[in-house]
Amino acid sequence: MEYQDLLDYLDDAEKRLLAFIRSNNVCKYFNPEDIFKSVFSYIDRPAKRLRPSVLLMAAGALGGPQREQIALPAAAGIELFHTWTLVHDDLIDNDKLRRGGQTVHEAMCGIARSRQSLPENLATEYGRDVAILTGDMQHGWAISCFVDCGLQAEVNSMLILKIIKHLQSYVLGNLIFGEVLDIQYGMHPLTKLQEVNEAKIVEMLWLKTGVLYEFAGMAGALIGKDTCDFEDDEVQAITHFASKCGIAFQLQDDILGILGDEVSLGKPVGSDIREGKKTVIVYESLKNANEFQRNTILSTLGNRAATSYEVQEVKQLFCDLNGIKRTKDLASHYIKEAIPYLDIIPESRYKQLLLLWAHYMLDRDF
Amino acid sequence: MEYQDLLDYLDDAEKRLLAFIRSNNVCKYFNPEDIFKSVFSYIDRPAKRLRPSVLLMAAGALGGPQREQIALPAAAGIELFHTWTLVHDDLIDNDKLRRGGQTVHEAMCGIARSRQSLPENLATEYGRDVAILTGDMQHGWAISCFVDCGLQAEVNSMLILKIIKHLQSYVLGNLIFGEVLDIQYGMHPLTKLQEVNEAKIVEMLWLKTGVLYEFAGMAGALIGKDTCDFEDDEVQAITHFASKCGIAFQLQDDILGILGDEVSLGKPVGSDIREGKKTVIVYESLKNANEFQRNTILSTLGNRAATSYEVQEVKQLFCDLNGIKRTKDLASHYIKEAIPYLDIIPESRYKQLLLLWAHYMLDRDF
Repeated sequence: MEYQDLLDYLDDAEKRLLAFIRSNNVCKYFNPEDIFKSVFSYIDRPAKRLRPSVLLMAAGALGGPQREQIALPAAAGIELFHTWTLVHDDLIDNDKLRRGGQTVHEAMCGIARSRQSLPENLATEYGRDVAILTGDMQHGWAISCFVDCGLQAEVNSMLILKIIKHLQSYVLGNLIFGEVLDIQYGMHPLTKLQEVNEAKIVEMLWLKTGVLYEFAGMAGALIGKDTCDFEDDEVQAITHFASKCGIAFQLQDDILGILGDEVSLGKPVGSDIREGKKTVIVYESLKNANEFQRNTILSTLGNRAATSYEVQEVKQLFCDLNGIKRTKDLASHYIKEAIPYLDIIPESRYKQLLLLWAHYMLDRDF
Repeated sequence: MEYQDLLDYLDDAEKRLLAFIRSNNVCKYFNPEDIFKSVFSYIDRPAKRLRPSVLLMAAGALGGPQREQIALPAAAGIELFHTWTLVHDDLIDNDKLRRGGQTVHEAMCGIARSRQSLPENLATEYGRDVAILTGDMQHGWAISCFVDCGLQAEVNSMLILKIIKHLQSYVLGNLIFGEVLDIQYGMHPLTKLQEVNEAKIVEMLWLKTGVLYEFAGMAGALIGKDTCDFEDDEVQAITHFASKCGIAFQLQDDILGILGDEVSLGKPVGSDIREGKKTVIVYESLKNANEFQRNTILSTLGNRAATSYEVQEVKQLFCDLNGIKRTKDLASHYIKEAIPYLDIIPESRYKQLLLLWAHYMLDRDF
């Protein structure tokens, strides 16, 4: 199999996913219009859909094509779950762009401003309020999709209950833990970043991203194998595999945030630098910097008014000071750790797709 | 049976509820400490717990004491579901007090201010962020409690899946619809209140409050009777009963917001007036006011700096202009409509408690 097979699979999976989501009977409850539009805004934009695709491949690997298809509502559930966390995170981070368009709070602030000629502070509040409620609605919708999966005759309803419980306790708790740590790190001055250490940054990154990939693999494996046993060897293998790949995904994401292409990223290049995002890249570069380089980095990072020259200078330092390379090496390390987990999984097209998908975590350029 | 029997029942139900909540195995996922404290802050304060109690009584009415006890995790689920909506609503409404203490966003803003001597705008953002994530965590926890109910051997797991789906689609969608309408009404000047009409105000109030009471009755009835049939006559009877009582609850709540006692309400008397809350009381009073009275009401309502003399004056007008009486009459009307639904329910202690509870909606003074 070749990369193109993976890309074709991802393309097809996305089509099935969006068809399910758009025709779902819950859509009729999205009222009034501002909520309806906001609920769909991120969903309708181009996106990678990597979490649902790993769920589907895991289901296929342990249960074949028929069970892969049965898992589709759960795949929709994880995509929607990811979506609500984006809507709330974007508000928390005061971000203006997502997937090449306005964030929900930003768009709704604009609508309030133009529709009712509200003063700026009230328009901002309206944007905030609709973003909070949009995420809440999507959160409910995500769970409802997991239920849809369990309402099929071929799926054990007890299994779906256990999957929902795991998502709403362990997964959600860890996601929120990671998000709050991120906010709290952001409140510390960058000069204190070295009091943190690489392991702590990677842990936060696992909490914020890895845990949902882990869940995607696990849920797909459980539904595919049709077992309630979370400790099953094959289920555990895919769970660990997906968890490690999730860390690599985020490390690569941080690299693309510095070196990636504006159009495919959907946000201006340099925004990670201007926002002062705390990554392994930054940590490693600061560790290796001399005093002059250190001052250059610290004066630009987190400076929303930094010029493109300054941004370019910091990019170069991230390359020269081993920040990019160290991050790439770490990502490769996690993929290397991930792959052997699949040894005990029987050969199949889905297993091959999962392996290609793991390599894609490192090679993808958007 | 007497009122005291109902009060004893509510007291006992609250004890069982809090014991379940506090010992629930999901608590270990509330990290870091600010999240743990925030998740519990409203739960630990005195509250009426009317939604879980109607769920338990409904379960008892159709299944007796044993099934009432089995429904306890679902009762915890609805209390937590209600709690997350309070946390997000308080942020949306910029409220400072809830149940006699600080709201989550307000308390966390204060903590950020004192702990890190952050500038005011960043402390406010921290409060907002923790409040969003606290509500999100409680939302997940609520669903996890419904799952706990379904993991018991005596409960049909398919039934719990259907209850969760109903909650996360129909109920949540209507709640959010009501909340956004409320925000949008709030953006219109009060002078336009008469373009609305009483039926519209009652509809919004059903969306914001009635729908969750309806759900409480329905979920309790389904679990009590151990049926998956949402259209079952007895289930439908209790569903309609609880829905009507929910409207009466909110109408009485609006009266207490004007005439109630500061200590039992947990917020300063007059805050509904200073916030300009749009209720049937306001609508009816404005309808019956002469120009002078109308101007008095409009100049005080929504004025956060109104003096206690001005607030007292508006209170008096709400009484004189039939606002309070009309609201009381409407509440009685909905309770009168609610009660006959219980005719088809077999006699039992729980049925008597439900009837007392319906009257309590009108008589309660906090």
